[in-house]
Amino acid sequence: MKTEGRNAVLELLRSGKGIDKILMQKGAEGSAGRIFALAREQGVRVQFAERAALDRESETGRHQGVIAYVSEYEYADFAQLLAPSEGARLVIVCDGIEDVHNLGSILRVAECAGASGVVIPKNKSAQVTGAVIRISEGAANHIRVARVPGVNYAIEELKKNGFWVYGLEADGEDIYAASLSGDVALVVGGEDRGLAPLTRKKCDKILSLPLFGKVNSLNASVALGIAAYEVVRRRRT
Amino acid sequence: MKTEGRNAVLELLRSGKGIDKILMQKGAEGSAGRIFALAREQGVRVQFAERAALDRESETGRHQGVIAYVSEYEYADFAQLLAPSEGARLVIVCDGIEDVHNLGSILRVAECAGASGVVIPKNKSAQVTGAVIRISEGAANHIRVARVPGVNYAIEELKKNGFWVYGLEADGEDIYAASLSGDVALVVGGEDRGLAPLTRKKCDKILSLPLFGKVNSLNASVALGIAAYEVVRRRRT
Repeated sequence: MKTEGRNAVLELLRSGKGIDKILMQKGAEGSAGRIFALAREQGVRVQFAERAALDRESETGRHQGVIAYVSEYEYADFAQLLAPSEGARLVIVCDGIEDVHNLGSILRVAECAGASGVVIPKNKSAQVTGAVIRISEGAANHIRVARVPGVNYAIEELKKNGFWVYGLEADGEDIYAASLSGDVALVVGGEDRGLAPLTRKKCDKILSLPLFGKVNSLNASVALGIAAYEVVRRRRT
Repeated sequence: MKTEGRNAVLELLRSGKGIDKILMQKGAEGSAGRIFALAREQGVRVQFAERAALDRESETGRHQGVIAYVSEYEYADFAQLLAPSEGARLVIVCDGIEDVHNLGSILRVAECAGASGVVIPKNKSAQVTGAVIRISEGAANHIRVARVPGVNYAIEELKKNGFWVYGLEADGEDIYAASLSGDVALVVGGEDRGLAPLTRKKCDKILSLPLFGKVNSLNASVALGIAAYEVVRRRRT
């Protein structure tokens, strides 16, 4: 799917919708610089080409030196993540992960740890874009990602389906002292604001990693990686 | 410390030396675009200003619309990392981490896990720049980072000083089955190429995390986080 023209591509960038790459005419000036800067900020690849190449790619004939390629990621049904499975299930719930690097990294961690799937809200969250797929090293294509209207709804459904739902935050119970048996859902909050207050409340428990330094938080995907692998470790012993 | 002029700043960017930020004249064209792109790629902040502001900042009067600010990070002596300590020591050795995001994230993990320090080689490695400090959420200012001529030299010194040196890679012994007692050094390799062959050989052992997906590697800082916290967990139980 192509979006052409400077304003359209700028709007597309601002919408946060998934852009695979942007084709830009070599030497393009004016608002092309803004598009380039915004694209870099969002981790969207910008490829430069001669005008003739853009003319060939253009479907409208009015590309103004900029064409964006949008891909459609195939999301899973949330119900698939709730389905019973042979072994114990592990689901990752993202609460307001807005940074594409963090989401991509979380999908990679989830896939490596053998999670059954990842839940993201439809709003106020990074979506699975081409950039996220690239950052996830392709893990996004191998793990189920389900979109839900809201994280709190997802937590209630998970609980109804037998999951223990644990929020990851700095002021909870020591994860190494907590029980992690049964089906587990780990809820990870956005980098700056952490878990939303209502989301915290809905969790069965808040779990924390011990921190020994002066910087009192780990990056979301690193914290999730450590917690998810603690679940993995327990299940193997 | 300031570096002025387009070629000088381009060279500085290419050298990979630490740049805090780049001040760029609004509307600067030509090679300024290359400087901007390279800066974004390396995570260096670019701030735009009127020509008058650059004239005021300039020490040479020949800034050509571009001034780079370089800061000097205070590295620790490697010997400090080898010094005896009360509890068991944990040192992180970076083997060819060239990405500033990865290095920043590694420093943050190391600080949170209570490591005594981080070792980076002087060459073919990201150095502690302003960008790295920012990405580390300031952890770089709280943890000792020592630069060594080479990783293999560092490993030998660590061994001489009583450390068990473990390389992290995909084809080693299961970390959950391995002993992690005593003073531990974890060696983490660059994202793409992993550990150098000689570095692998010098390690006492190669340790691996179990991987359950199709993407057969974790991000360097995530893998390090999981391994470092496994060391933390063992020491607490």
